[in-house]
Amino acid sequence: MNLILVRHGESEANFENYWTGWLDVNLTDRGIQQAKDAGKKIKEAGLLIDVAYESVLKRSIKTAKMILAEADASFVPEYKTWRLNERHYGALVGKNKDLIARDFGAAQVKKWRRGFDEVPPLTQDNHFDRRYDQLDPRLIPTGESLHMTSKRVRPLWKDQVAPQLLAGKTVLVCGHGNSLRALVQFLENIPTDQVDQIDIPNATPMVYKFDRKLQIEEKIIL
Amino acid sequence: MNLILVRHGESEANFENYWTGWLDVNLTDRGIQQAKDAGKKIKEAGLLIDVAYESVLKRSIKTAKMILAEADASFVPEYKTWRLNERHYGALVGKNKDLIARDFGAAQVKKWRRGFDEVPPLTQDNHFDRRYDQLDPRLIPTGESLHMTSKRVRPLWKDQVAPQLLAGKTVLVCGHGNSLRALVQFLENIPTDQVDQIDIPNATPMVYKFDRKLQIEEKIIL
Repeated sequence: MNLILVRHGESEANFENYWTGWLDVNLTDRGIQQAKDAGKKIKEAGLLIDVAYESVLKRSIKTAKMILAEADASFVPEYKTWRLNERHYGALVGKNKDLIARDFGAAQVKKWRRGFDEVPPLTQDNHFDRRYDQLDPRLIPTGESLHMTSKRVRPLWKDQVAPQLLAGKTVLVCGHGNSLRALVQFLENIPTDQVDQIDIPNATPMVYKFDRKLQIEEKIIL
Repeated sequence: MNLILVRHGESEANFENYWTGWLDVNLTDRGIQQAKDAGKKIKEAGLLIDVAYESVLKRSIKTAKMILAEADASFVPEYKTWRLNERHYGALVGKNKDLIARDFGAAQVKKWRRGFDEVPPLTQDNHFDRRYDQLDPRLIPTGESLHMTSKRVRPLWKDQVAPQLLAGKTVLVCGHGNSLRALVQFLENIPTDQVDQIDIPNATPMVYKFDRKLQIEEKIIL
C-alpha cells in the first residue's frame, strides 16, 4: 500500500517565474532529466508501480511517462484527470511574479501563493483547447483558492486512489505544486493555518506507506 | 469516424533482424524520430485524436506517446492491452532470421512470417515480468499463427475500438506488424490466402474513414 506523490519536473514557467495554473507549458531539458532521475530513485527503492494518475497538463503527463519508463512500469494503466491540474490562478496566469509583487506588494503575493482561502483575481477568458470539452462547464474554475483546489482533488482520492491502495496497489500520483499541497494537507491532517509551510519541490518522490485502515505508517522522501 | 493505425517505429530488433514477438525491446533513435514524424503528419492532416490504444510493449507505448505529444493530444485517454501485442513467435523469439533461414530454409521462414495458419515452434519458457500477472494464464500463448493473433485482436475491435468510432471518436491504434496485419485483414476483408501481401511499414499512419455502419469510405496512407 504505497502512494508515491511526485510534482512534475521543472517547467518553462518555473524557470521563467510566471504564474501558470492551467497553462499547458513544457518541461525544460532540466525538468526532463529531473523526471528521469525521479524514476530511477523509485526503481532503486524497489517500488513496483501498479497504476499512475496524472493531470491533463503535459508537464505532469510527460513527467509520469519518464518515471514509468525508468521504473520499468511503462505498461501500467495511466489515468489523466483535470482534478490533478495545478490550482487555477485566475487573472494572474501568465503574469511575472516579481512584477505582480511590485504592483500588489509581496505580502499580497504571498497570500495568493500560500494562503488557504485566498482567491486570486478571476479571469474573464479561459483560453482552453478541446481537452475540457467533455467537462461540465460549471466545474471549470476562473480562479481558485487552495481550498477550492482541495475540494476538487478530494474526489480523486476518495473514488480512485484510496480504493487502489486498499486493493494493495502501489499508486503513482504525478501532480502539481498546489494539487499536491492540497493532497498532502489532507493526508497529513495539517491545519489550514499551516498550509503555507507545505512546500513540494519538483520531481522529488514522496512515498507514503499506509496500513489497512489507510493510516500513514511511514513517509519517505526519495 | 477516423481510425488511425500505426505500427511502432524502428525497434532494436527490427534493426538487428531477429524475431521479437512479446520481447520488450526499445525503439532505436531512428524509431523515435519516425514516431515523432508520424505524429506531425497526423497533426498536419488535421486529425484530432480522441483516444489511443497501445500494446503493453514499450515500442508501441513509446511510439503512441510521441505521436500524441506531436499531435497535441497528450491529454487523451490511453489504454494499454496485451491484445495489441505483436504475434507471439514461440521458440523463434530472439533468433536471427537469416540464421533460421539457413537452418530451416527460406520457404519455411516465409511461411512462419507470412502465412495465416502456420504456427511457429512453441516455446517452453515465457520469461515474462509482472505485466501479465493479472491475465488468465490460459490466454498467454507459447506461439501463435497469424490466425491465433487475429482471434485475440478481434475482441479489442468489437468491444472497444468499434464503439468509440460509433461514438464519433477519432481513434489511434498503435500496434505491431502482425497485430495490425490481423486488423487490416479483418477490416478490408482480405482472403486468408492473400495475407502474405499485407505489409505494415514502421510508423506510417494509415487512416480509415468509416460511415455510420462502419463501412470503409476511404483509406489514406500519410
